Amino acid sequence: MGGPLSGLVVLDLTQIYNGPYCTFLMAAAGADVIKVEPPGGEHLRKRTVAAASRLPYANLNAGKRSLRLDLRQDAGRDILLRLADKADVLVENFAPGVTERLGIGAGVVRARNPRIVYASSSGYGSEGPYRDYPAMDLTVQAMSGIMSVTGFPGQPPVKAGPAVCDFMTGIHLYGAIVTALLERARTGQGGHVEVAMMDACYFSLASNLGMVHAGSSSETTRTGNRHGGLSLCPYNVYPSADGYIAIIVNNDSHWRQLLAAFGQERLAEDPRYRTNADRVRNMDEVDELVGSWTRPHTRTECFERLVRHRVPSAPVRDLGEVMLDPHLHARGMLAWSEHPEYGRLVAAASPLRFDGAVSRPERPSVALGADGASVLAEKLGLSECELATLANDKVI
Amino acid sequence: MGGPLSGLVVLDLTQIYNGPYCTFLMAAAGADVIKVEPPGGEHLRKRTVAAASRLPYANLNAGKRSLRLDLRQDAGRDILLRLADKADVLVENFAPGVTERLGIGAGVVRARNPRIVYASSSGYGSEGPYRDYPAMDLTVQAMSGIMSVTGFPGQPPVKAGPAVCDFMTGIHLYGAIVTALLERARTGQGGHVEVAMMDACYFSLASNLGMVHAGSSSETTRTGNRHGGLSLCPYNVYPSADGYIAIIVNNDSHWRQLLAAFGQERLAEDPRYRTNADRVRNMDEVDELVGSWTRPHTRTECFERLVRHRVPSAPVRDLGEVMLDPHLHARGMLAWSEHPEYGRLVAAASPLRFDGAVSRPERPSVALGADGASVLAEKLGLSECELATLANDKVI
Repeated sequence: MGGPLSGLVVLDLTQIYNGPYCTFLMAAAGADVIKVEPPGGEHLRKRTVAAASRLPYANLNAGKRSLRLDLRQDAGRDILLRLADKADVLVENFAPGVTERLGIGAGVVRARNPRIVYASSSGYGSEGPYRDYPAMDLTVQAMSGIMSVTGFPGQPPVKAGPAVCDFMTGIHLYGAIVTALLERARTGQGGHVEVAMMDACYFSLASNLGMVHAGSSSETTRTGNRHGGLSLCPYNVYPSADGYIAIIVNNDSHWRQLLAAFGQERLAEDPRYRTNADRVRNMDEVDELVGSWTRPHTRTECFERLVRHRVPSAPVRDLGEVMLDPHLHARGMLAWSEHPEYGRLVAAASPLRFDGAVSRPERPSVALGADGASVLAEKLGLSECELATLANDKVI
Repeated sequence: MGGPLSGLVVLDLTQIYNGPYCTFLMAAAGADVIKVEPPGGEHLRKRTVAAASRLPYANLNAGKRSLRLDLRQDAGRDILLRLADKADVLVENFAPGVTERLGIGAGVVRARNPRIVYASSSGYGSEGPYRDYPAMDLTVQAMSGIMSVTGFPGQPPVKAGPAVCDFMTGIHLYGAIVTALLERARTGQGGHVEVAMMDACYFSLASNLGMVHAGSSSETTRTGNRHGGLSLCPYNVYPSADGYIAIIVNNDSHWRQLLAAFGQERLAEDPRYRTNADRVRNMDEVDELVGSWTRPHTRTECFERLVRHRVPSAPVRDLGEVMLDPHLHARGMLAWSEHPEYGRLVAAASPLRFDGAVSRPERPSVALGADGASVLAEKLGLSECELATLANDKVI
């Protein structure tokens, strides 16, 4: 037990990535998260027939209890509402209008329990002309402009590899919920909080939006791994003997340090490269030059030289390396663990660190409905007989 | 006034994107955010000599007060510590060790004011072997594996266009701070919260990490705009007469709807494409086919057909379109405003929506040190004479 959110009860109706990341963070911070799933399980759980979905499912649903509940039956809806009467938070990321159709919308729930924080998330929000557009990470990446600024010039737009729209939204939703709980501590009243995926991504495009604002053209350009405004050089990803290395030269001291790192001090006073303005003017040439210095060495050799000379840089690592990263394991962000259903896997902790403590839920993700009986007995006092009837009617 | 965080005083020592996004969200939620800047202003403010940095600066620093303070002078440090005695939150995103060297580390500040929440953010965290590695959005994108999964197969890795590592971290930091404030409401004690950029990005790679977990190889592959696991088809970005359109077919009903959208119903029973497994097997052919249907139409025509037939899709929009988006303006996420220094610009609201209210700070970002005298008079009761001495000594 313990954790800053301990004692809070969260009804979690979410699915896939966005909502479940939000409630994972709540579980890791000590909340009692009751994952309410439809009879077949939530979408991501259903996908765990494929091995590739098991790690995401396990990590995102660690520390949560599972209650199977058919909300399309009156008895199921009734149970949900009675649970909401005793809960502190209800979280959902259905398409707008779905909870209202199920009879568990914010209006109904908040009328019964004014202390509850009801949290909703969707692609475009519950209002506005795009409200009912279908939304998934890929489509929001397209609509939000993320794709338009990702990739190489002269080539098609490309999505950011990570599901940035889903996860950006999940953590915003967490922030909104906890903010409303803080206000409740003062006023005694809950509220309805909402985060749209489109909104949650907007600020991350700050540099690129700044370029649009500054320029006369509304067209955005892709700059590959170069600086978004093409106003710093070197700023790129360079080839090495065994992969790539990212290097940023923010100022002329960094440039001289970079020269020293590769024994090129003789270029320090070369007028073609002396100032950032000079280097930007000769960007192709400078990038070619830097690449010729990095290419003979491994990523690690390059990185060690650059760190020694205090030049901002990093190897481009693949995810196999990241999952086994000594730093992430040393700090407890990652740890090997044995999952009862999925076997040995790398479990991830919450990125939120309170007083240095690592928050990684001890209890692994559980099978569909594993906690149904105990949750309903504990929260609603249902008897064995009532539980048997509900199970018989396929409500739970 | 108003807002769920009203009444809270936040000392904001942050710079560029990560920290300032966190404190922007606090200001938008009603907190009194005092931006403490070095004599020359924070890095992003200095960059506003270039037009492209003005919009980001204005949006990220709206609603904050500005206090110029030289922390390297004893008198400056003393003022900071006295302000911290009366503050609820102190936020900083310096490299690890910097606040300690300045004499304003968490230990010193929390010993004087145990109610304060001290919040720190850095690239790799305050512990572990990579602690002192230089960290910026680009280098963390390299190190975290984001680049390795972004881009087209057979081509170099590429960064995600938006500054995802910076902004992901800023919103996580917000979540951590508000969580600690909620705990303080119960215990009376503040705490030290921390978010590392590496940690904050990790979960967004869930799908890609799942592939690594499932496969025997640790090598990650780039799939361009195709599904990360190459297990859904169509799932791609297709050419249109005036740009690109993203389309996702999650199941065989979506496939039939897609056929109907483009008058291709005759293919419904074609054994090469009938099930998702069939289409995945013939992925190149299917992508070619879908592209031939979308290519003659504009993005808008394609999107309208697809929405009408309920196929998940979205046009790939550029940022000029996003900044003028009727939906974002209708919902109040964006609004034209007149900035006293930078002129007419599109101001952005907080993505956190409480009870339907739009939270966009009314007061625009201010000039460096604009609120120094009023903050110091109000918080520390400094006299005109004392303020004049501090100004004369270049402390403020």
